Amino acid sequence: MDVKELESYIVDIPDYPEPGVIFKDITPLFADPKPFRAMVDAFVSHYKDEGITKVVGPEARGFMIGTPVALELGAGFIPARKPGKLPRATVSASYELEYSTDTLEIHADAIQPEDRVLIIDDLIATGGTAAATGKLIQDMGATLVGYASILELCFLNPRKKLAESGDHDLFSLIKVN
Amino acid sequence: MDVKELESYIVDIPDYPEPGVIFKDITPLFADPKPFRAMVDAFVSHYKDEGITKVVGPEARGFMIGTPVALELGAGFIPARKPGKLPRATVSASYELEYSTDTLEIHADAIQPEDRVLIIDDLIATGGTAAATGKLIQDMGATLVGYASILELCFLNPRKKLAESGDHDLFSLIKVN
Repeated sequence: MDVKELESYIVDIPDYPEPGVIFKDITPLFADPKPFRAMVDAFVSHYKDEGITKVVGPEARGFMIGTPVALELGAGFIPARKPGKLPRATVSASYELEYSTDTLEIHADAIQPEDRVLIIDDLIATGGTAAATGKLIQDMGATLVGYASILELCFLNPRKKLAESGDHDLFSLIKVN
Repeated sequence: MDVKELESYIVDIPDYPEPGVIFKDITPLFADPKPFRAMVDAFVSHYKDEGITKVVGPEARGFMIGTPVALELGAGFIPARKPGKLPRATVSASYELEYSTDTLEIHADAIQPEDRVLIIDDLIATGGTAAATGKLIQDMGATLVGYASILELCFLNPRKKLAESGDHDLFSLIKVN
């Protein structure tokens, strides 16, 4: 399956979770093994020569795409979780939402300075979550290779936000203008 | 790597999340590509001839093991989520916790009667979550092939609980007595 066909699997949900917002439901891309395989192959093909040692995925849909991509790249998978979900010592990154702030945590021993890290999620919207995670990875002394996402909401200008944490690749499969 | 080596990666956290409980941290199994690959290979080897069409994983660690296993079995992955997280019409299953009840939801169109379903999670403890998910899958008319988990807490007797939803295979990689 060609990557161009992936967009047809996404279901738009108007006014969810609140009026005026169109939610992009990506679960059908995983429910069918054809688009699921095509997504993973596209990410692996893009990053296979980058020497990625760790893939970091934010809770919870970042786990869905992050673990198969990590497995096929021969890398480890590191979950970035909501506060209080990881049982050992953590490092954390906070980022601004429209009316509040949110925080992600990573186990402090999960990333080493010699790691080459890919951050992957289902969706890049404003880029706030990804940029905060990327800064955290770099503060831990590792090399941030880039950001990957299934869907990129280009009209929210995430590339501008991501550029604040340095000059890193953003590779997205589906661009929504 | 042999499956017998997997247990050495699990970190016991005493008195987490509350006094008297020993939490089993399975994240190191994913952080290193060797045990991660060994786990996925063990599940795929066990189920490869079962004609699995859908793998269902409960939020959130069930996503971490469920998606790579689904990909390698050539099956789709269906997330079972906490209430309010899935944007379209859902079916739900409730199950009892020690002092409360909890609920998981699956998109109503995610499972068809012709599906052969594997339910997978990181941990089988009392079996309550898995049994409720298994009943839901069968109520949707599909065939439940079995349950799989990385870790089975045998002293909580999950096999007795799972047997209430029918005679199904439980395949676990690490048994804690």
